[in-house]
Amino acid sequence: MTARNAFYAQSGGVTAVINATACGLIETARRHPDRIGKVLAGRDGILGALTEDLIDTSLESDADIARLKHTPGGAFGSCRYKLKSLDEHRAQYERLIQVFRAHDIGYFFYNGGNDSMDTAWKVSQLAETMGFPLVCVGIPKTVDNDLAVTDNCPGFGSVAKYVATSMREAGYDVASMARTSTKIFVLEVMGRHAGWITAACGLAAEAEGEPPHILLFPEIPFDPETFLARVQDCVSRYGYCTIAVSEGLHDADGRLIADMGSKDAFGHPQLGGVGQIVAQLIKDRLGYKYHWALADYLQRSARHIASRTDLEQAYAVGVKAVELALAGRNGVMPAIQRLADVPYAWEIAVAELSQVANVEKKMPREFISPDGFHITPACRRYLQPLIEGEAFPPFRSGLPDYVRLQNQPVEKKLEAFSV
Amino acid sequence: MTARNAFYAQSGGVTAVINATACGLIETARRHPDRIGKVLAGRDGILGALTEDLIDTSLESDADIARLKHTPGGAFGSCRYKLKSLDEHRAQYERLIQVFRAHDIGYFFYNGGNDSMDTAWKVSQLAETMGFPLVCVGIPKTVDNDLAVTDNCPGFGSVAKYVATSMREAGYDVASMARTSTKIFVLEVMGRHAGWITAACGLAAEAEGEPPHILLFPEIPFDPETFLARVQDCVSRYGYCTIAVSEGLHDADGRLIADMGSKDAFGHPQLGGVGQIVAQLIKDRLGYKYHWALADYLQRSARHIASRTDLEQAYAVGVKAVELALAGRNGVMPAIQRLADVPYAWEIAVAELSQVANVEKKMPREFISPDGFHITPACRRYLQPLIEGEAFPPFRSGLPDYVRLQNQPVEKKLEAFSV
Repeated sequence: MTARNAFYAQSGGVTAVINATACGLIETARRHPDRIGKVLAGRDGILGALTEDLIDTSLESDADIARLKHTPGGAFGSCRYKLKSLDEHRAQYERLIQVFRAHDIGYFFYNGGNDSMDTAWKVSQLAETMGFPLVCVGIPKTVDNDLAVTDNCPGFGSVAKYVATSMREAGYDVASMARTSTKIFVLEVMGRHAGWITAACGLAAEAEGEPPHILLFPEIPFDPETFLARVQDCVSRYGYCTIAVSEGLHDADGRLIADMGSKDAFGHPQLGGVGQIVAQLIKDRLGYKYHWALADYLQRSARHIASRTDLEQAYAVGVKAVELALAGRNGVMPAIQRLADVPYAWEIAVAELSQVANVEKKMPREFISPDGFHITPACRRYLQPLIEGEAFPPFRSGLPDYVRLQNQPVEKKLEAFSV
Repeated sequence: MTARNAFYAQSGGVTAVINATACGLIETARRHPDRIGKVLAGRDGILGALTEDLIDTSLESDADIARLKHTPGGAFGSCRYKLKSLDEHRAQYERLIQVFRAHDIGYFFYNGGNDSMDTAWKVSQLAETMGFPLVCVGIPKTVDNDLAVTDNCPGFGSVAKYVATSMREAGYDVASMARTSTKIFVLEVMGRHAGWITAACGLAAEAEGEPPHILLFPEIPFDPETFLARVQDCVSRYGYCTIAVSEGLHDADGRLIADMGSKDAFGHPQLGGVGQIVAQLIKDRLGYKYHWALADYLQRSARHIASRTDLEQAYAVGVKAVELALAGRNGVMPAIQRLADVPYAWEIAVAELSQVANVEKKMPREFISPDGFHITPACRRYLQPLIEGEAFPPFRSGLPDYVRLQNQPVEKKLEAFSV
């Protein structure tokens, strides 16, 4: 059997540990030179395959590949680009096969979330119908933790650790100042459809009265009056109130709270995220001074406070993806399977891409307290192991020492293709 | 000589390391039982002295006091409350002396920024004029790094390390996604009058083209056209543009950019900080999609990524404050004196409070590049050592394990006093 090349692409929003997956994949591929030639990475994700912008990872040293394990972001570039159905965009799928054929690619690894698993699944079918020998393996990644089948998603545990740490730290700050200054603190976090990241903030509260006091989930329609009553109760009890809110918070009619601001003089939607809208509501109605923070990209790139569990799982799915490919398993995805909560035990199982694609895993209702404002013990049992362990990157000159790869291009062999 | 009690209060915005100063002070005081009785802390800062809400720190174990070294926020509570001049508020100063007399307080330690050093100075004079034997020592603390005489302020180095780390990490994220998604990222940081924190973001850029690409200082009036041209140039060169902006950014007439939004339908100022206003300007004029983050309290409470240098200095000024008090030095403040940039060397010197009070140290113009958009090598030399070294807190269950003191009250001896 001759060695064929592998294609690897990162897709969608990047995470603190997606490069650890790349590291696991490349390091494992390098241990099988008889089966796998070069790992060619797509520059800026699947776009790189379409435009034949391939990166030759074999030119990177073992040491630099190892450094991927502690480097956030997407080392080869990622993209938000969803291939449509085969009917609509057959030319794009055919182009992929054309590029793969030109570069002798026998393995297709696609590292992403829901959309990407859908793409990987389609490619896996196409390869079969087009008679091109290709093994397609999806690799899970998403801070949103909303992929089906897998118990959790690589990338989520580190965001969870970051937001819970940040919430705890800000809580200590606000508690110090509440008597004469800010009584309300709101942290806005990611998760447009699923409240996993918001839920993770709740891990910071280990005892009655500890921050965060209120969580606002996208799964629970926002009712201002119930919310304000809870805020007032908090301030009365503890002297202050800290809140984590999902960017996807909406009302009973499904309208995003973030979109409810008025327009400015130029017709622009009013600036400010849902965090500020909620905080301003408190100020308007209860009169309390507020501060708010918007973690935005900081939360998903915070490699400096990554979860060791998350890191190990991110690396493991990269390793397993290669093993599955070498075993000829087309159309599958390594999935994390939980064996026990305490002590936490997990292994990498195998999921069919057809079962994963386009299914969004929301927070189960039993993970949210009956009043809708916090997490339940069951949720805590689920989340707790995912943030366990530290995995600090090396530091140089006081800052995390992250790698920048050379990312040297593979020579093009085909005509240009416009996407 | 009999032992007299000491009063310690935290003042103004808290930091990731102000409790390390408290730790240094209390641990040192405990080593001098012949001279110092109990350290009584003001609950919620100086307010605690006025209302006789004193905390008996002698009831805290040595182990818990040691844990203050890795706990952010203000362990005894802080406040934003500036005592006015002696003429205006003589009753308040007299009340302080009354409380000090009632609790046999012979040492007054006030841990804060400009306003606090002013208060400490006034108290130091008052004690003399009122014939009450009291040694007043101010202790520097401010994330803004704007205190005079001291080379830098405890609290700043850790914010600096946090914002530079965050900027670097977000930079890796944006670089990954820029081809098809977000091209602009803006991080809004603290520093209403002085651009030290904004400057610290610049440390993340070690080579041409590395994030952050543009810094917007409060010392440099904001000119939209020059700024937009620079943004466009960045996107053309690097494919994206990352920006750190001070909350205190203003125009040539001194108007805060943050205040320039329009009003909404209810007459409220438009929501959104200066970070979003600047980002939206880019969107409106250049059409680029943006993300922005507002670090807010996260930056000043991020003990998990504290600078070891900052931590050591914060502890050292607490130690020195006690030594100065024991030497009878009234009206002084421990100040950090830089002996060398590379290798960095420092010692604790002594500043007169009269020289520190009410003087605001802004960024020198030679620390800002001629075009106003970045830091100079001289600035880098100044800032670099302040973020050096890591000092991770202990973790428990995946999160930083911070202490909550008992904070037991001292029995009141006086009539109530309203503030």
